Amino acid sequence: MHPADRDAARAPRVITSLQNEQVKFIRSLDMRKVRRETGLFSVEGAALIITARDSGWLPRTLIYAAGENQRPIVGGLVEWALAAGADCLEVTEAIIAKLASKENPQNVMAVFEQRWALPPLAVAEPADGTWLALEQVRDPGNLGTIIRTADAVGARGIMLIGASCDPYSPEAARATMGSIFNVPVARLDQPSFVQWLASWPGDVVGTHLSGTDDFRTVAYRSPTVLVMGSEGAGLSSELAAACTRLVKIPMAGRLDSLNLAVATALALYQIRGSHLRV
Amino acid sequence: MHPADRDAARAPRVITSLQNEQVKFIRSLDMRKVRRETGLFSVEGAALIITARDSGWLPRTLIYAAGENQRPIVGGLVEWALAAGADCLEVTEAIIAKLASKENPQNVMAVFEQRWALPPLAVAEPADGTWLALEQVRDPGNLGTIIRTADAVGARGIMLIGASCDPYSPEAARATMGSIFNVPVARLDQPSFVQWLASWPGDVVGTHLSGTDDFRTVAYRSPTVLVMGSEGAGLSSELAAACTRLVKIPMAGRLDSLNLAVATALALYQIRGSHLRV
Repeated sequence: MHPADRDAARAPRVITSLQNEQVKFIRSLDMRKVRRETGLFSVEGAALIITARDSGWLPRTLIYAAGENQRPIVGGLVEWALAAGADCLEVTEAIIAKLASKENPQNVMAVFEQRWALPPLAVAEPADGTWLALEQVRDPGNLGTIIRTADAVGARGIMLIGASCDPYSPEAARATMGSIFNVPVARLDQPSFVQWLASWPGDVVGTHLSGTDDFRTVAYRSPTVLVMGSEGAGLSSELAAACTRLVKIPMAGRLDSLNLAVATALALYQIRGSHLRV
Repeated sequence: MHPADRDAARAPRVITSLQNEQVKFIRSLDMRKVRRETGLFSVEGAALIITARDSGWLPRTLIYAAGENQRPIVGGLVEWALAAGADCLEVTEAIIAKLASKENPQNVMAVFEQRWALPPLAVAEPADGTWLALEQVRDPGNLGTIIRTADAVGARGIMLIGASCDPYSPEAARATMGSIFNVPVARLDQPSFVQWLASWPGDVVGTHLSGTDDFRTVAYRSPTVLVMGSEGAGLSSELAAACTRLVKIPMAGRLDSLNLAVATALALYQIRGSHLRV
């Protein structure tokens, strides 16, 4: 922000036109192309924004329906956003309805800068750390749910390998329930990842139909990388070959696969199990 | 089907108008109200229809884009449907595009009759059986994923308690990946369910924040009912009181909940674990 803009940002601005350029810009963040070009993303609802605040994120913009700031929770978010030098936009119900999701729309939204992590330095990794690598994950709901689960098991972070859906899409961010603000997410192409794995000191675990070991009976060597294949194709042969352990999740009946977020959760709870206590 | 209609049904009918009444009717099955009134539902894609066939279901109607029946898989489904006395509709690309889902549309669809199961007779339940009860599940993607997981662990079936989303909605059925044709689903209101639980010989397990036992350390008494609360509110106090065991899934950090489909999968794999082998 330029210093000259600072005073202007000290109070919310009232916007009533759907044609307002800032409103149109925020709406355009629903498009992946715009998110990629700007490095920004938006989230909806006080709960997610509070998680962002409590995790040390600062918003670029806070948008709320007129009157919502009378609620202490939203009022507090407005104060926080103004103190951070963010634009605060007080908008009409019609505008927030246009910006918000169709199902379960919320009356407060915020724009943040994306934070992409770097792949971890293997030598600096704590001995009991767990990373998760997802190959070409396609479904944003699955990706968001997986980020939430990675947070729940205390994984160190997630690496997105190859062409993946966007963790900063509205659907993915919503499914994280706020964990998008807590879990580092890195991205790298498949050859770089295979090369990176070569220096990893612990097990590289893949779930694969050709695995012979029951995932519940293996003693995983820490630090551990869990590699999960995509929804349709499963793990590629390149990544399967890069694993030190191929394991299988047992299934009854004729089924040969589980939902990706479910399979990932089962494997993560197994690998991280000894670190978790009620 | 009336006998007089039988010959007419022996060959596919060609439909080219989006205004055709049958096309409009099939499209209306996207609405819950119509599914409830007719007891029918539709599914999309050869994979799901093959699962239905292999599980002994017969279609009311099969719809495919002209030319698709040249593919052996769809051709085989057409033969099967005609032999079952179903209506076979050969339609234009425009019609199938109108009927199919917007993301990942398929060129073949089928209409089936819903099959609602009755709550099991507790006295007739096998000693090692597991039932899953879901209280007011809201998200059709979660419900479909849970049905798929219930199939994978060999659960006996699912009971939907109170106001739930519809397992026969397009989104839920798709998320089951075909398990909707294999897993019995019953529905009952909360008081009936509490009454029914009274005769249950084994453990009634609920996951609950007030649970003190780690879900991984409990010896569950068979046959077992696992009761999961809804996405937002969790288990109601009425159902929590009806449980013989309240357990907790441990989580790292600040989180206090997991995605419902993930939490259900973790609990089901724990309860059914000794029955599953790779």
